[in-house]
Amino acid sequence: MSGWDLLIENVHLATLAGDAGHDGNEGYGTIRDGAIAVRGGRIAWLGPRAEAALHGSAREERDGGGCWLTPGLIDCHTHIVHAGNRSDEFEARLNGATYEDIARAGGGIMSTVRATRAASEEALLAQSLPRIRSLLAEGVTTLEIKSGYGLDEACEAKMLRVARRVGQVLPVRVATTFLGAHALPPEYAERADDYIDAVCGMVPALAAEGLVDAVDAFCERIGFTAAQTERVFEAARRAGLPVKLHAEQLSDGGGAELVARYRGLSADHLEHVSGAGIAAMAASGTVAVLLPGAYYFLRDTTPPPIAALRAAGVPMAVATDNNPGTSPMTSLLLALNMACTLWRLTPQEALAGATVHAARALGLHGEIGSLAVGKRADFALWRVARPADLCYAIGFNPCAAVVNGGVWRAPAVPA
Amino acid sequence: MSGWDLLIENVHLATLAGDAGHDGNEGYGTIRDGAIAVRGGRIAWLGPRAEAALHGSAREERDGGGCWLTPGLIDCHTHIVHAGNRSDEFEARLNGATYEDIARAGGGIMSTVRATRAASEEALLAQSLPRIRSLLAEGVTTLEIKSGYGLDEACEAKMLRVARRVGQVLPVRVATTFLGAHALPPEYAERADDYIDAVCGMVPALAAEGLVDAVDAFCERIGFTAAQTERVFEAARRAGLPVKLHAEQLSDGGGAELVARYRGLSADHLEHVSGAGIAAMAASGTVAVLLPGAYYFLRDTTPPPIAALRAAGVPMAVATDNNPGTSPMTSLLLALNMACTLWRLTPQEALAGATVHAARALGLHGEIGSLAVGKRADFALWRVARPADLCYAIGFNPCAAVVNGGVWRAPAVPA
Ligand SMILES: [Zn+2]
Ligand SMILES: [Zn+2]
Repeated sequence: MSGWDLLIENVHLATLAGDAGHDGNEGYGTIRDGAIAVRGGRIAWLGPRAEAALHGSAREERDGGGCWLTPGLIDCHTHIVHAGNRSDEFEARLNGATYEDIARAGGGIMSTVRATRAASEEALLAQSLPRIRSLLAEGVTTLEIKSGYGLDEACEAKMLRVARRVGQVLPVRVATTFLGAHALPPEYAERADDYIDAVCGMVPALAAEGLVDAVDAFCERIGFTAAQTERVFEAARRAGLPVKLHAEQLSDGGGAELVARYRGLSADHLEHVSGAGIAAMAASGTVAVLLPGAYYFLRDTTPPPIAALRAAGVPMAVATDNNPGTSPMTSLLLALNMACTLWRLTPQEALAGATVHAARALGLHGEIGSLAVGKRADFALWRVARPADLCYAIGFNPCAAVVNGGVWRAPAVPA
Repeated sequence: MSGWDLLIENVHLATLAGDAGHDGNEGYGTIRDGAIAVRGGRIAWLGPRAEAALHGSAREERDGGGCWLTPGLIDCHTHIVHAGNRSDEFEARLNGATYEDIARAGGGIMSTVRATRAASEEALLAQSLPRIRSLLAEGVTTLEIKSGYGLDEACEAKMLRVARRVGQVLPVRVATTFLGAHALPPEYAERADDYIDAVCGMVPALAAEGLVDAVDAFCERIGFTAAQTERVFEAARRAGLPVKLHAEQLSDGGGAELVARYRGLSADHLEHVSGAGIAAMAASGTVAVLLPGAYYFLRDTTPPPIAALRAAGVPMAVATDNNPGTSPMTSLLLALNMACTLWRLTPQEALAGATVHAARALGLHGEIGSLAVGKRADFALWRVARPADLCYAIGFNPCAAVVNGGVWRAPAVPA
């Protein structure tokens, strides 16, 4: 008999644990009429409700009200810390402006870089928090945040410090990613290799400050070459940091193979990934992070090769890619709907993509992303009839409560 | 000098009034640094903030905090009162089931008809309220609700009574639409004309009970013919009720011309409307109600002819079409984003589509949908930098407060 801190009863558990073994034909690692116990911020026991009393008792008991309980959701790819937005460009384009008009007016990613460079750390945090609260209200308990709008060491550090502060002021675990190789800043025009030198030089200092959990780059015709990307990866390796990559969004540049060669955590976007890229990812255990928000917003017509990724056994994650230029989306549930609607993921695949596989894309699958004894007690409770409702509804938030490290919160986000 | 009930200061007004005359080149009928006064539930004055004191003073003053203030949003096409959902079919289809498999298992619209017929009035209301609260949280102050899952007089009446009750228990004005001619109920299989007789027979009784503000039908190869639709319109005319029509969603059946001939309020969907249909609508002042949620959810590839509708001067409204089969969407802001992203409406067109033109689609443009003296004081206040933000963001709710008939509410929806 164990002494628990918290016992949640009267819930159906969607464990998303591959070896749950309780799910019959339901999928999702389902345990109907379940209960889950927490001690020291971790899952101490889970199983059929009727068996809970045989295993322990808790100081605090909560009635889950018949909700479904899933692992807390994980948004594993965002650029959510940034200043300003680009609704002015959105409107100008719809009113007939060309990309050239907008570039001439100082628009595009550089307008976000200017705004982010100019913002104080306080202002950057204040502008980012409403977007983050929107994610958290939908059951997100872990959030990846990339830098990449500073593009010099001081401003990249500022973005990453703001990302760390998000995890202090809101109930969310933050994973930071250094994306210095996001775009070429104007002061390095025509000198991309020199800028990559500078990026490589930033890695050790930012890492020493504890600001970097992973290193990312934008490998694309309009971004950086595979050779430049590899130099960034070498700098990451020297600093002992894992890598991930924006790869094959607009064209096949061999990025998937490259990041797989570095045993990268994830290759993200992948609309144009090749069969060789998929095979390399499968061999290295690299996660495919699918970003339907950008596909939707850009009216892309080439979906990522879902069937081939599925057949190769590549784990698929789904994320919002929140960013002001190509995916101003602050709903992970909506990303799940888009993954199902636009790309025909099954609801179970989509939900795994925002939990167990998203955790793997952050290198945190030993800690979070599924319900199993020893994992961190990060949960979301949902007023739904079945897990598929989370993917089916469009613009509806059925989140009834969130548990972060064993701490119960209803509603999910503090005011 | 007037005595007002309420004065809201420190707001930018987007009046959406065509004759606002204050907007310079900004569009939206903008009055920056404005104020708006209410007396007896109606707009008593609006203009530049600095001039408010010249015109009157109010018992209650509110600081709008620099928000944008728009007319309350109007969702002018929904099937939001229904029992059950169809996430099980959504999931089955993504797991490989064919439409035939689903029909054999009793799925499709008839599963919603069965659930809605079986539900008590209380249960139907309770199941519908969370969806409606989701709309209201985003600044919706008027909502159209159709019947059409009862398909017999008692169950259609039940749906319409629930719709009326929504307007009593939540702060929203409800416009009801009788859609008996939505689908052929199983007891009339192969006897569509007999069912249309029955529908025509329901009109006077439901109208006498005060349950019907307009009459609608589903004119489509898989719905009812133009001739059958016309019989329903004749019944509406006899009862003194305006008509609207689900027209040309899947094919051109001449529905737009038909509804225009009856000087109908709106023709809805319109993906396949012809030039003749557009000309007829322009001549009769019939609103084109655009429903991007269904287009998105069904992965349709034929957009409605926006440019031709625009060129002909047909007013375009945008609505959620909330329904369990083809648009399980409970966010009107998301419908605006889809209208812009997928169909290239401008943000100003989209916002007019959820305010002034949506009001016209309900025959209520004399009452609501724009900010002008004498109109009902239904407002939404938004924490945004510019009106285009309402269309640009995906899954973000910046609604700070709502005013219904002069009553201030923050947050927008009671718990
Ligand atoms: Zn990205
Ligand atoms: Zn409809």
